[in-house]
Amino acid sequence: MQEKNTKKNREVIIIGGGAVGMAVATSLMRHSDHSVKVFSADRHTAYSQCGMPFVIGGQIKDFDSLILRDNRFFKEMRIDLRLESRVDSINLKESSISSGGQSYHFDKLVIATGSKPKIPANINGCYLKNVFTLRTLSDAMKIESALSDASNIVIIGAGSIGAELAAATAKRNINTILLNRNSSILSHNIDPDMAESVQEHLESLGVKVITGYVPESINGEERVKSVTVASTEFPADLVIMSVGVEPENELASNAGIEIGETGGIIINEYLHPLAAGKYLEDIYCGGECVEVHELITGNAMLSQVASTARRMAGVITNNLTSTLTEFGPILNPWVAVIGELQVGTTGITSKKAMENYIKIVTGIATGSTRAEYYPGGSKLFIKLIFSDRYLVGAQVVGGEGVKERIDALTLAIKKRTTIDELADIETCYAPPVSMLIDPVNFAARGALKKIRRNAKK
Amino acid sequence: MQEKNTKKNREVIIIGGGAVGMAVATSLMRHSDHSVKVFSADRHTAYSQCGMPFVIGGQIKDFDSLILRDNRFFKEMRIDLRLESRVDSINLKESSISSGGQSYHFDKLVIATGSKPKIPANINGCYLKNVFTLRTLSDAMKIESALSDASNIVIIGAGSIGAELAAATAKRNINTILLNRNSSILSHNIDPDMAESVQEHLESLGVKVITGYVPESINGEERVKSVTVASTEFPADLVIMSVGVEPENELASNAGIEIGETGGIIINEYLHPLAAGKYLEDIYCGGECVEVHELITGNAMLSQVASTARRMAGVITNNLTSTLTEFGPILNPWVAVIGELQVGTTGITSKKAMENYIKIVTGIATGSTRAEYYPGGSKLFIKLIFSDRYLVGAQVVGGEGVKERIDALTLAIKKRTTIDELADIETCYAPPVSMLIDPVNFAARGALKKIRRNAKK
Repeated sequence: MQEKNTKKNREVIIIGGGAVGMAVATSLMRHSDHSVKVFSADRHTAYSQCGMPFVIGGQIKDFDSLILRDNRFFKEMRIDLRLESRVDSINLKESSISSGGQSYHFDKLVIATGSKPKIPANINGCYLKNVFTLRTLSDAMKIESALSDASNIVIIGAGSIGAELAAATAKRNINTILLNRNSSILSHNIDPDMAESVQEHLESLGVKVITGYVPESINGEERVKSVTVASTEFPADLVIMSVGVEPENELASNAGIEIGETGGIIINEYLHPLAAGKYLEDIYCGGECVEVHELITGNAMLSQVASTARRMAGVITNNLTSTLTEFGPILNPWVAVIGELQVGTTGITSKKAMENYIKIVTGIATGSTRAEYYPGGSKLFIKLIFSDRYLVGAQVVGGEGVKERIDALTLAIKKRTTIDELADIETCYAPPVSMLIDPVNFAARGALKKIRRNAKK
Repeated sequence: MQEKNTKKNREVIIIGGGAVGMAVATSLMRHSDHSVKVFSADRHTAYSQCGMPFVIGGQIKDFDSLILRDNRFFKEMRIDLRLESRVDSINLKESSISSGGQSYHFDKLVIATGSKPKIPANINGCYLKNVFTLRTLSDAMKIESALSDASNIVIIGAGSIGAELAAATAKRNINTILLNRNSSILSHNIDPDMAESVQEHLESLGVKVITGYVPESINGEERVKSVTVASTEFPADLVIMSVGVEPENELASNAGIEIGETGGIIINEYLHPLAAGKYLEDIYCGGECVEVHELITGNAMLSQVASTARRMAGVITNNLTSTLTEFGPILNPWVAVIGELQVGTTGITSKKAMENYIKIVTGIATGSTRAEYYPGGSKLFIKLIFSDRYLVGAQVVGGEGVKERIDALTLAIKKRTTIDELADIETCYAPPVSMLIDPVNFAARGALKKIRRNAKK
């Protein structure tokens, strides 16, 4: 750890008003006397993107609830917040950016431009009216407005947002088709065996799930009318494209900052970007626009979870103010709430293990979140993935207690926990909140039995 | 690991039909061809003791629901189950026990006699009618029957059972007084600062909590009428004594088996008891009647949680059949559900640290179980206890997500997780199930700040 002299580096410019940008801006003003300007192309700031599907689903009463801080708050914090202000270029040599024809000097620059939704190039009709992507609060509001008189919706892409949205629209009695290219839903996050129960749950909510197909065309004159899938035409009053996001990095790239194989900005452990072979000590990058590394494989990856963004914001703030802090490889734990089901994952999936030639043993268990005689419990599906006797990945699906188990298993991977340790871990018990033996133990024991059987062969 | 020859050791006698006894009996018959006799003084077997307060509270509809296996099940398993059959003596030399005037030979003996409720010797009136302890299903049924026309109850002892019962009877609109010798409730499990919110919750349910007093007398002629506390007489239609339990070990002690300082049977890592300076390889002891060791302090202790019993049953079964397995020191994670609150602990408390001259730093955080804008979340109180930068204890109180966090923190202690690691752990996030940053992180950061402040002094 090394103390930094902050007096000389007071002019901070932040590009992006999302999870990283606003967290850095706010903590800087709380703990130091920097002058902070934030430029954001978005009309809103400091709102919860992750909450948007739940406003559409009706669990949260309105979009205003998602706005965590109003603009007055930032004014009072003396943050110079410029919404709907796109930055046009970054000039590394002169330590300046330009926006709206004006140039602004920075001592320190934070690039937190986030991601943008992917639009498949090969599908006709992507730009028809009522074909939406869901990224910003404005997007969500447009979708909400279009839903008000919709009978049919087609959601293209069954990732986190697609699946959450499908549950939300089905709950509103809108005929919902969820279309996925891969043969199983949530394929970036969980293995097909675990995805099955999520798909069944979506179907029980009334969602028609079609896997293994891409849309042939999105049809309509001005406004979308239908989507053609495998020569069948499905009526659609609106279509949501949720086939993933990609880093928003044109600005960085045009400035000469290096972009990695994943499309994210290359950074070092202090979150400095690379340009002309050197890490730029006056610039920090964080959030979905950067390339991080996966702890198990060492592979470059993009992390698209708010909790990673928030941790990066912490590192950037530390490095801008006091304690030099490193950002290490991640396990990228993820949880989504799809209808009544919670779905979570951490570390690597079986699929990723296979792609990386990692030999694994898996253990699967079905349990319950309460004692069998205690009312209100729900099923819990656990999958543990071991390599060389160490836990390297885990997936959990259930009605409650998923997020906390994923967090526990993330820690278990990080701390190099063995299959024997997990098969014998102490867990606590009370009938209203658990089984006598936690299903995580059963999953580990299942994997252990497989190993013993194989050893005997 | 070492394979054992099981053929010669087929006659197994188990003393005790509780969590250890029945689990060992059942797994033995599933995985081997032993002949198993179980002797139990109790009238019922294979029921959930932990569930009893929740039948009284009305969350579970009847006591029958708590009976997990009926006697026919054990008959079909070919287990010779003898209920209401007290064992009178164990003869170590002859490898036999006697019960009801008859002698029975064993090749292997399992002693799992459990605990019995403590009765304070110095209080008059403990043996009046309607003064109960809650240990067996028969006890619970008697209490339930007495509650049916009760207006006033005094519960003596605010441990796990006392606190759970107080919430249960208050819910039934019975005037409930919970009396505790210690100045804070649940004092064996959690520190006073954490107990405060539990006490407040009990009070909000209508429980009158009196701490720092023992009853002067329990009054009545034949049947209890009142309890006198600090010269005040409180009317009582029934009284429950829940001042703790002690190992039921007369049988073992009379046989010459050594009893430890805690009152539990001394065992080695294979759960063999000690007699005349030697560990007895044909005898196993498990559950609440034995003395175990606490991982952090190394101290001898009694574990009174069903999950420890269940883990011991696993070790005994393994050692009786195939894989030689050790039972190590424990962290004894514990959770209770008191009204709408879940309360959990693992490792050592501040109090225990002080008693053992362990210097600690604590971190406390208050958080929520959901995003602030997501309906239905509840407060979460976290206390982390660090010694020499390592986590050694944790306490969690909240409306949901307590058991899973205690399990995670148990693993964290076991795997020697540092304060820096916990302050920076990755956790997952979705608005319906968590805050963006888990309160566990905040608690660790709080402790870290204290350490840094102290270092600067």
